[in-house]
Amino acid sequence: MNEDQIKKDEFYMRKALVEARLAAEANEIPIGAVIVCNDRIISRAHNLTETLHDVTAHAEMQAITSAADMLGGKYLCDCTLYVTVEPCTMCAGAIGWAQISRVVYGAPDEKRGYTKIAPKALHPKATVTAGVIEDECREIMQNFFMKVR
Amino acid sequence: MNEDQIKKDEFYMRKALVEARLAAEANEIPIGAVIVCNDRIISRAHNLTETLHDVTAHAEMQAITSAADMLGGKYLCDCTLYVTVEPCTMCAGAIGWAQISRVVYGAPDEKRGYTKIAPKALHPKATVTAGVIEDECREIMQNFFMKVR
Repeated sequence: MNEDQIKKDEFYMRKALVEARLAAEANEIPIGAVIVCNDRIISRAHNLTETLHDVTAHAEMQAITSAADMLGGKYLCDCTLYVTVEPCTMCAGAIGWAQISRVVYGAPDEKRGYTKIAPKALHPKATVTAGVIEDECREIMQNFFMKVR
Repeated sequence: MNEDQIKKDEFYMRKALVEARLAAEANEIPIGAVIVCNDRIISRAHNLTETLHDVTAHAEMQAITSAADMLGGKYLCDCTLYVTVEPCTMCAGAIGWAQISRVVYGAPDEKRGYTKIAPKALHPKATVTAGVIEDECREIMQNFFMKVR
Protein backbone atom coordinates (compact mmCIF):
# COMPACT_ATOMS: atom_id res chain seq x y z
CA MET A 1 0.00 0.00 0.00
CA ASN A 2 1.38 3.47 -0.78
CA GLU A 3 2.17 6.00 1.90
CA ASP A 4 -0.73 8.27 0.96
CA GLN A 5 -3.21 5.45 1.51
CA ILE A 6 -1.63 4.54 4.84
CA LYS A 7 -1.92 8.16 5.99
CA LYS A 8 -5.52 8.34 4.82
CA ASP A 9 -6.39 5.12 6.60
CA GLU A 10 -4.91 6.41 9.83
CA PHE A 11 -6.73 9.71 9.41
CA TYR A 12 -10.12 8.04 9.03
CA MET A 13 -9.42 5.48 11.75
CA ARG A 14 -8.80 8.40 14.12
CA LYS A 15 -12.29 9.62 13.25
CA ALA A 16 -13.66 6.18 14.09
CA LEU A 17 -11.74 6.36 17.39
CA VAL A 18 -13.45 9.67 18.19
CA GLU A 19 -16.74 7.77 17.83
CA ALA A 20 -15.44 4.92 20.01
CA ARG A 21 -14.65 7.45 22.75
CA LEU A 22 -18.18 8.82 22.55
CA ALA A 23 -19.42 5.27 23.10
CA ALA A 24 -17.16 4.84 26.15
CA GLU A 25 -18.46 8.09 27.62
CA ALA A 26 -21.98 6.70 27.29
CA ASN A 27 -20.95 3.43 29.00
CA GLU A 28 -21.21 1.56 25.74
CA ILE A 29 -18.62 -0.96 24.51
CA PRO A 30 -16.28 1.52 22.80
CA ILE A 31 -16.43 0.74 19.11
CA GLY A 32 -16.72 3.44 16.49
CA ALA A 33 -17.13 3.46 12.71
CA VAL A 34 -17.10 5.88 9.81
CA ILE A 35 -17.95 5.29 6.16
CA VAL A 36 -15.97 7.14 3.52
CA CYS A 37 -17.01 7.73 -0.09
CA ASN A 38 -14.83 9.72 -2.51
CA ASP A 39 -12.63 10.96 0.30
CA ARG A 40 -15.57 12.24 2.26
CA ILE A 41 -17.04 10.90 5.50
CA ILE A 42 -20.68 10.16 4.77
CA SER A 43 -21.59 8.58 8.12
CA ARG A 44 -20.27 8.25 11.65
CA ALA A 45 -21.61 6.03 14.38
CA HIS A 46 -20.78 4.31 17.63
CA ASN A 47 -22.12 1.33 19.46
CA LEU A 48 -25.47 2.05 21.15
CA THR A 49 -26.66 -1.42 22.17
CA GLU A 50 -27.12 -0.51 25.85
CA THR A 51 -28.74 2.88 25.30
CA LEU A 52 -31.19 1.49 22.75
CA HIS A 53 -31.61 -1.97 24.38
CA ASP A 54 -30.93 -3.30 20.91
CA VAL A 55 -28.32 -5.90 19.99
CA THR A 56 -28.46 -4.74 16.38
CA ALA A 57 -27.25 -1.20 17.24
CA HIS A 58 -23.57 -1.89 16.53
CA ALA A 59 -21.50 1.00 15.17
CA GLU A 60 -21.20 -0.61 11.73
CA MET A 61 -24.94 -1.29 11.39
CA GLN A 62 -25.85 2.27 12.19
CA ALA A 63 -23.12 3.62 9.92
CA ILE A 64 -24.44 1.49 7.03
CA THR A 65 -28.05 2.56 7.55
CA SER A 66 -27.04 6.19 7.81
CA ALA A 67 -24.71 6.09 4.77
CA ALA A 68 -27.40 4.49 2.61
CA ASP A 69 -29.84 7.13 3.75
CA MET A 70 -27.33 9.82 2.86
CA LEU A 71 -26.66 8.39 -0.61
CA GLY A 72 -30.32 7.56 -1.24
CA GLY A 73 -29.61 3.95 -2.22
CA LYS A 74 -28.95 0.80 -0.30
CA TYR A 75 -25.66 -0.23 -1.96
CA LEU A 76 -22.37 1.23 -0.79
CA CYS A 77 -20.17 -0.28 -3.51
CA ASP A 78 -17.58 2.48 -3.68
CA CYS A 79 -17.35 3.04 0.04
CA THR A 80 -14.78 2.17 2.67
CA LEU A 81 -15.89 1.26 6.18
CA TYR A 82 -13.47 2.13 8.97
CA VAL A 83 -14.19 0.45 12.27
CA THR A 84 -12.05 0.30 15.40
CA VAL A 85 -12.64 -3.43 16.04
CA GLU A 86 -13.06 -6.36 13.65
CA PRO A 87 -16.74 -6.67 12.66
CA CYS A 88 -18.84 -9.49 14.13
CA THR A 89 -20.84 -11.98 12.06
CA MET A 90 -23.94 -9.78 12.01
CA CYS A 91 -22.04 -6.70 10.86
CA ALA A 92 -20.00 -8.65 8.31
CA GLY A 93 -23.29 -9.95 6.87
CA ALA A 94 -24.60 -6.39 6.60
CA ILE A 95 -21.32 -5.21 5.04
CA GLY A 96 -21.74 -8.02 2.49
CA TRP A 97 -25.34 -7.09 1.66
CA ALA A 98 -24.34 -3.43 1.25
CA GLN A 99 -21.54 -4.52 -1.10
CA ILE A 100 -19.03 -2.30 0.69
CA SER A 101 -15.84 -2.67 -1.32
CA ARG A 102 -13.24 -2.06 1.37
CA VAL A 103 -13.16 -2.67 5.11
CA VAL A 104 -10.44 -1.27 7.37
CA TYR A 105 -10.36 -2.29 11.01
CA GLY A 106 -8.14 -1.66 14.00
CA ALA A 107 -8.03 -4.44 16.58
CA PRO A 108 -8.96 -8.06 15.84
CA ASP A 109 -11.79 -9.70 17.80
CA GLU A 110 -10.55 -13.23 18.42
CA LYS A 111 -13.81 -14.43 19.89
CA ARG A 112 -16.61 -12.78 17.94
CA GLY A 113 -14.85 -11.55 14.81
CA TYR A 114 -16.27 -12.59 11.44
CA THR A 115 -12.94 -13.95 10.18
CA LYS A 116 -13.36 -16.89 12.54
CA ILE A 117 -17.14 -17.44 12.40
CA ALA A 118 -18.14 -16.29 8.91
CA PRO A 119 -15.01 -15.72 6.82
CA LYS A 120 -17.02 -15.56 3.59
CA ALA A 121 -19.60 -13.02 4.76
CA LEU A 122 -18.20 -10.00 2.91
CA HIS A 123 -18.70 -9.37 -0.81
CA PRO A 124 -16.28 -11.65 -2.70
CA LYS A 125 -14.53 -8.64 -4.26
CA ALA A 126 -14.18 -6.69 -1.01
CA THR A 127 -10.67 -5.98 0.26
CA VAL A 128 -9.78 -5.87 3.94
CA THR A 129 -7.01 -4.04 5.80
CA ALA A 130 -6.52 -4.99 9.44
CA GLY A 131 -4.40 -3.52 12.21
CA VAL A 132 -4.70 0.22 11.51
CA ILE A 133 -3.88 2.07 14.78
CA GLU A 134 -4.46 -1.34 16.33
CA ASP A 135 -2.95 -0.59 19.75
CA GLU A 136 -5.16 2.41 20.43
CA CYS A 137 -8.25 0.60 19.21
CA ARG A 138 -7.49 -2.34 21.51
CA GLU A 139 -6.51 -0.17 24.47
CA ILE A 140 -9.79 1.71 24.59
CA MET A 141 -11.58 -1.65 24.70
CA GLN A 142 -9.30 -3.07 27.41
CA ASN A 143 -9.69 0.06 29.55
CA PHE A 144 -13.45 -0.16 29.23
CA PHE A 145 -13.64 -3.81 30.27
CA MET A 146 -11.21 -3.31 33.15
CA LYS A 147 -13.46 -0.53 34.44
CA VAL A 148 -16.73 -2.48 34.24
CA ARG A 149 -15.51 -5.87 35.47
CA MET B 1 -41.66 -33.11 18.80
CA ASN B 2 -45.16 -33.54 20.20
CA GLU B 3 -48.29 -32.79 18.19
CA ASP B 4 -49.15 -29.70 20.20
CA GLN B 5 -45.80 -28.12 19.39
CA ILE B 6 -46.15 -28.98 15.72
CA LYS B 7 -49.57 -27.30 15.63
CA LYS B 8 -48.24 -24.27 17.47
CA ASP B 9 -45.30 -23.96 15.10
CA GLU B 10 -47.63 -24.09 12.11
CA PHE B 11 -49.92 -21.54 13.72
CA TYR B 12 -47.12 -19.03 14.27
CA MET B 13 -45.53 -19.73 10.89
CA ARG B 14 -48.86 -18.79 9.30
CA LYS B 15 -48.58 -15.45 11.12
CA ALA B 16 -45.11 -15.02 9.66
CA LEU B 17 -46.56 -15.85 6.23
CA VAL B 18 -49.13 -13.06 6.66
CA GLU B 19 -46.16 -10.72 7.11
CA ALA B 20 -44.42 -12.19 4.06
CA ARG B 21 -47.51 -11.43 1.98
CA LEU B 22 -47.50 -7.83 3.20
CA ALA B 23 -43.90 -7.62 1.98
CA ALA B 24 -44.88 -9.00 -1.44
CA GLU B 25 -47.65 -6.44 -1.73
CA ALA B 26 -45.07 -3.72 -1.11
CA ASN B 27 -42.78 -5.21 -3.82
CA GLU B 28 -40.35 -6.39 -1.18
CA ILE B 29 -38.75 -9.86 -1.17
CA PRO B 30 -41.53 -11.71 0.67
CA ILE B 31 -40.05 -12.78 3.98
CA GLY B 32 -41.94 -12.40 7.24
CA ALA B 33 -41.12 -13.02 10.88
CA VAL B 34 -42.78 -13.10 14.27
CA ILE B 35 -41.26 -13.47 17.73
CA VAL B 36 -43.16 -15.44 20.34
CA CYS B 37 -42.65 -15.27 24.10
CA ASN B 38 -44.81 -17.30 26.51
CA ASP B 39 -47.25 -18.20 23.75
CA ARG B 40 -47.74 -14.58 22.80
CA ILE B 41 -46.60 -12.79 19.66
CA ILE B 42 -44.48 -9.86 20.84
CA SER B 43 -43.36 -8.62 17.43
CA ARG B 44 -44.17 -9.00 13.74
CA ALA B 45 -42.17 -7.69 10.82
CA HIS B 46 -41.52 -8.12 7.14
CA ASN B 47 -38.65 -7.30 4.88
CA LEU B 48 -38.44 -3.57 4.09
CA THR B 49 -35.02 -3.26 2.43
CA GLU B 50 -36.38 -1.57 -0.72
CA THR B 51 -38.80 0.78 1.01
CA LEU B 52 -36.18 1.94 3.51
CA HIS B 53 -33.16 1.69 1.12
CA ASP B 54 -31.54 -0.25 3.92
CA VAL B 55 -29.91 -3.67 3.61
CA THR B 56 -30.27 -4.16 7.36
CA ALA B 57 -34.08 -3.97 7.26
CA HIS B 58 -34.63 -7.73 7.05
CA ALA B 59 -37.75 -9.12 8.73
CA GLU B 60 -35.74 -10.79 11.51
CA MET B 61 -33.72 -7.66 12.35
CA GLN B 62 -36.81 -5.54 12.70
CA ALA B 63 -38.60 -8.24 14.69
CA ILE B 64 -35.63 -8.45 17.11
CA THR B 65 -35.42 -4.67 17.57
CA SER B 66 -39.14 -4.44 18.10
CA ALA B 67 -39.32 -7.42 20.52
CA ALA B 68 -36.49 -6.01 22.64
CA ASP B 69 -38.27 -2.68 22.71
CA MET B 70 -41.44 -4.41 23.79
CA LEU B 71 -39.71 -6.37 26.57
CA GLY B 72 -37.54 -3.43 27.64
CA GLY B 73 -34.32 -5.43 27.47
CA LYS B 74 -32.01 -6.47 24.69
CA TYR B 75 -31.93 -10.24 25.37
CA LEU B 76 -34.65 -12.51 24.04
CA CYS B 77 -33.56 -15.70 25.80
CA ASP B 78 -36.98 -17.29 26.20
CA CYS B 79 -38.27 -16.32 22.80
CA THR B 80 -38.88 -18.24 19.60
CA LEU B 81 -38.31 -16.57 16.25
CA TYR B 82 -40.48 -17.78 13.37
CA VAL B 83 -39.31 -16.74 9.94
CA THR B 84 -40.52 -17.90 6.55
CA VAL B 85 -37.03 -18.32 5.07
CA GLU B 86 -33.75 -19.47 6.63
CA PRO B 87 -31.96 -16.45 8.17
CA CYS B 88 -28.91 -14.99 6.42
CA THR B 89 -25.52 -14.47 8.09
CA MET B 90 -26.42 -10.97 9.31
CA CYS B 91 -29.70 -12.09 10.86
CA ALA B 92 -28.17 -15.21 12.37
CA GLY B 93 -25.55 -13.00 13.99
CA ALA B 94 -28.27 -10.78 15.45
CA ILE B 95 -30.23 -13.85 16.63
CA GLY B 96 -27.04 -14.99 18.35
CA TRP B 97 -26.46 -11.64 20.06
CA ALA B 98 -30.08 -11.56 21.24
CA GLN B 99 -29.64 -15.09 22.65
CA ILE B 100 -32.89 -16.24 21.08
CA SER B 101 -33.33 -19.80 22.28
CA ARG B 102 -35.30 -21.27 19.39
CA VAL B 103 -35.48 -20.54 15.69
CA VAL B 104 -38.15 -21.99 13.42
CA TYR B 105 -37.93 -21.40 9.70
CA GLY B 106 -39.85 -22.45 6.63
CA ALA B 107 -37.84 -22.70 3.43
CA PRO B 108 -34.05 -23.14 3.33
CA ASP B 109 -31.90 -20.53 1.57
CA GLU B 110 -29.25 -22.56 -0.20
CA LYS B 111 -27.26 -19.53 -1.30
CA ARG B 112 -27.39 -17.01 1.52
CA GLY B 113 -28.58 -19.08 4.49
CA TYR B 114 -26.48 -19.00 7.65
CA THR B 115 -26.18 -22.80 7.86
CA LYS B 116 -23.79 -22.65 4.91
CA ILE B 117 -21.92 -19.39 5.63
CA ALA B 118 -21.95 -19.08 9.42
CA PRO B 119 -23.20 -22.34 10.96
CA LYS B 120 -22.01 -21.30 14.44
CA ALA B 121 -23.64 -17.86 14.48
CA LEU B 122 -26.56 -18.71 16.77
CA HIS B 123 -26.26 -19.07 20.55
CA PRO B 124 -24.69 -22.48 21.28
CA LYS B 125 -27.78 -23.59 23.22
CA ALA B 126 -30.30 -22.45 20.60
CA THR B 127 -32.44 -25.10 18.93
CA VAL B 128 -33.54 -24.91 15.32
CA THR B 129 -36.54 -26.40 13.54
CA ALA B 130 -36.54 -26.14 9.74
CA GLY B 131 -39.16 -26.91 7.11
CA VAL B 132 -42.35 -25.70 8.83
CA ILE B 133 -44.93 -25.01 6.08
CA GLU B 134 -41.90 -25.09 3.82
CA ASP B 135 -43.78 -25.34 0.50
CA GLU B 136 -45.86 -22.23 1.07
CA CYS B 137 -42.86 -20.27 2.32
CA ARG B 138 -40.88 -21.23 -0.79
CA GLU B 139 -43.78 -20.70 -3.19
CA ILE B 140 -44.35 -17.10 -2.19
CA MET B 141 -40.63 -16.44 -2.85
CA GLN B 142 -40.68 -18.23 -6.21
CA ASN B 143 -43.79 -16.36 -7.33
CA PHE B 144 -42.19 -13.07 -6.39
CA PHE B 145 -38.97 -13.72 -8.31
CA MET B 146 -40.85 -15.04 -11.36
CA LYS B 147 -42.80 -11.79 -11.43
CA VAL B 148 -39.82 -9.45 -11.13
CA ARG B 149 -37.37 -11.26 -13.40
